[in-house]
Amino acid sequence: MRNLTLLTDLYQITMGQGYFNEGRHEELAVFDIFFRPNKLITYSVAAGMEQAAEYLENLHFSEEDIAYLRGLGIFTEPYLAYLSKLRFTGDVFAVKEGEIVFPYEPILTVRAPMIQAQLVETALLTFINHQTLIASKAAKICAAAGSGVVMEFGLRRAQGADAGIYGARAAVIGGCGSTSNVYAGKLFDIPVAGTMAHSWVMNFPSELEAFRAYAHSFPDACLLLVDTYDTLHSGVPHAIEVFKELRAAGHEPKGVRLDSGDLAYLSKEARRMLDEAGFENAIVCASGDLDEYSIRSLKEQGAKIDSWGVGTKLITSADLPALGGVYKLSAVYENGVEIPKIKLSDTTEKITNPSFKELYRIYDKKTDKAIADYITRAGETIDESKPLELFHPTETWKRMTVKDFRIRKLREPLVVQGKRAKAPRPLAEISAYRAAEYARFWEEYTRQDMPHIYKVDLSPALYALKRQMIEACGKGEEC
Amino acid sequence: MRNLTLLTDLYQITMGQGYFNEGRHEELAVFDIFFRPNKLITYSVAAGMEQAAEYLENLHFSEEDIAYLRGLGIFTEPYLAYLSKLRFTGDVFAVKEGEIVFPYEPILTVRAPMIQAQLVETALLTFINHQTLIASKAAKICAAAGSGVVMEFGLRRAQGADAGIYGARAAVIGGCGSTSNVYAGKLFDIPVAGTMAHSWVMNFPSELEAFRAYAHSFPDACLLLVDTYDTLHSGVPHAIEVFKELRAAGHEPKGVRLDSGDLAYLSKEARRMLDEAGFENAIVCASGDLDEYSIRSLKEQGAKIDSWGVGTKLITSADLPALGGVYKLSAVYENGVEIPKIKLSDTTEKITNPSFKELYRIYDKKTDKAIADYITRAGETIDESKPLELFHPTETWKRMTVKDFRIRKLREPLVVQGKRAKAPRPLAEISAYRAAEYARFWEEYTRQDMPHIYKVDLSPALYALKRQMIEACGKGEEC
Repeated sequence: MRNLTLLTDLYQITMGQGYFNEGRHEELAVFDIFFRPNKLITYSVAAGMEQAAEYLENLHFSEEDIAYLRGLGIFTEPYLAYLSKLRFTGDVFAVKEGEIVFPYEPILTVRAPMIQAQLVETALLTFINHQTLIASKAAKICAAAGSGVVMEFGLRRAQGADAGIYGARAAVIGGCGSTSNVYAGKLFDIPVAGTMAHSWVMNFPSELEAFRAYAHSFPDACLLLVDTYDTLHSGVPHAIEVFKELRAAGHEPKGVRLDSGDLAYLSKEARRMLDEAGFENAIVCASGDLDEYSIRSLKEQGAKIDSWGVGTKLITSADLPALGGVYKLSAVYENGVEIPKIKLSDTTEKITNPSFKELYRIYDKKTDKAIADYITRAGETIDESKPLELFHPTETWKRMTVKDFRIRKLREPLVVQGKRAKAPRPLAEISAYRAAEYARFWEEYTRQDMPHIYKVDLSPALYALKRQMIEACGKGEEC
Repeated sequence: MRNLTLLTDLYQITMGQGYFNEGRHEELAVFDIFFRPNKLITYSVAAGMEQAAEYLENLHFSEEDIAYLRGLGIFTEPYLAYLSKLRFTGDVFAVKEGEIVFPYEPILTVRAPMIQAQLVETALLTFINHQTLIASKAAKICAAAGSGVVMEFGLRRAQGADAGIYGARAAVIGGCGSTSNVYAGKLFDIPVAGTMAHSWVMNFPSELEAFRAYAHSFPDACLLLVDTYDTLHSGVPHAIEVFKELRAAGHEPKGVRLDSGDLAYLSKEARRMLDEAGFENAIVCASGDLDEYSIRSLKEQGAKIDSWGVGTKLITSADLPALGGVYKLSAVYENGVEIPKIKLSDTTEKITNPSFKELYRIYDKKTDKAIADYITRAGETIDESKPLELFHPTETWKRMTVKDFRIRKLREPLVVQGKRAKAPRPLAEISAYRAAEYARFWEEYTRQDMPHIYKVDLSPALYALKRQMIEACGKGEEC
């Protein structure tokens, strides 16, 4: 395992020395990760918590790290000695990977000595921002593909090896069925997909010979790329010819892949030709610059595509390449007593929610559908047997009362006193969890165009604290 | 070092088995990496070759990798036995990192046994695409910043750890002076930058106490973040107060950082206040959602900013998150004789340049400025003592004759028979090289708005081969 302890912004380490010199470095602090609304994201799929836990458990400066820091000439020996023994000893509460989450929700909270909580900010944001972004993009693409299988094909366009590896992981959490990335396949037990490139076809005297050679090597996994020369006049007829030979030898072909041209027209014609030749079970795959918009358009045009290979636009989340999640101080402790902290702003939506908090989801008992999410101060109790009044967090005159509901705590301990609370979950389980939770949302909340905004409301106690702190601090200040 | 041998698309390994079964896996093949024109990129800065060389030299399947591949149930034992002994034994020719490069140029060429050349395609594209993208984006941002220093601040928004680490490296190749990323700083000997976050200021009873505490810990590296409460009425006055105390104690302050608000107005006022207080040498840094567009706009408005902290939009290349470089077969060898290969397309610009090639840059001897780049077949000689006629690669009636020129081979061996040809170069040297080469381009070619298109022409011999192959193969086919 790589030691990523130095994967942080320098200012975390300079502030650490400041707190150390002030004797305040071990004061307990609470920070929340949340993100703000974004036009392109209706809902997000939480991911990256697994890497966050692994990183926290492994946090330690190596001797070489300390020597490097010493060489910078800005750190004192007592501080470096302290860092050389530093481990993460705090607690982390987080939503499960695969959870459907919304803006402003504290999807991960760190409660740790100040110096540790600052040090880990950057890497936690890197992991959570990246994987949540790609899982959310994948979920949009898979929603567009409907019953079609989506394959993650983006490694060569990923922003480095990790973007490919953890991007593939996140894509599966978001709903992709497989990846072309063998490294990710091995590391996370993801089904791997892929057969041939155009170079294979170019490397034989004819397309037919290329197909035949491939069928010879992979009689039971024969998926042929048919667009190298002319999809309908050469590729599909040659594929059918080879498929017949395979069947005669007792093998069933897998299908064909289209990678260029008018995928709507070509897929309909390829489907018809395959069916007429008796290969109704051979699938038609498509790839080439796909995303949720082009997939939706192709389906509207009646394209006959069974599986979609999605590359660049998924692995980079091309229309929104950063989620912009933030990590904000929400409390400190003095002599064991919580002092809530708030960050004010002239923009009301940018004011943070103070104090150590809890996050719930409220479901209608009859329909089992999610009604709203609900943020409370930690330790508040909710009586499910009584009606619960919800109100909009800023337009407070918007109210509704829910009855006959059940409530679920969305966060669980991820790390307790520096040790991970649970073993890693298999990726297939995380993906299944996402699918099950997604089904508990009305389509009106999850659709991409003009979705109904899902409610994320504050408890009266949290709202009262927030109002009181805003008024005490005065507009434009931080407290 | 991580073993990234499985960092490839599955189809590279399935095709490998196909070639293995055909007995053709050790036939020599030549592949080029190049990219196509893009509206957003005037010129690119090559990067990632160092990681490519490291990866190739280290290429080997571990026992665990082979066991994983066996478990997929699609590979034969003879093939797996072959893979378990496979190393990269080929040659790679590439431009230097930091070289200014243009569309269609073979910036990296692999000549290796077919099975190896296919296997390494994906990872080579990942490294080169990513780092060249970020180096190019950094170059645009640094060009906008002019004499101002640009600091790379993007780690928390990077697409995973590698995107942050190698993105920081590429940003420095492109012209950034420092990074906040401590891991990258250590790994690549990059100057690291960073002092404090808003949370530091929020964690003290007052801004003045927060500043004073910081100055106490870092008397000679005191750069204060002044926008937490009110930049001009609180932040800058408090900073000046602490700066006076520092000076009285024999230390000179470094300056202030602005992270929000109207950076043009605030920087001018902060500059004026610092100057009036006698801190003419204190710098004004700015950060917050910056890129080449906002930096240019701020400079046009007369902002007084000495250094720029650039995050999300640099580390993700937000307006173009993938370069889209491709890896195309250009030749195979039969009995030691080169058989050029070409990929045809209905789109003329998408037709590849066949054969094993060489890439040159032509400079005017008087001005030392670059005139054009020139692609030849390997082994062609160019007589610098005679006029050289250049012609447009598709609009061939556009011609020019250059005299009194010097010519430089842009590529050098990166890997020879599987071993890297040279030791890694220090990053500072690569960045200085880029700056020196950049200065050899007329501004008309490198400006962002409506640049004059720099010429990348083919030699008559290469052009003749290409025409002949196009005509022999017929439109729409590949040969």
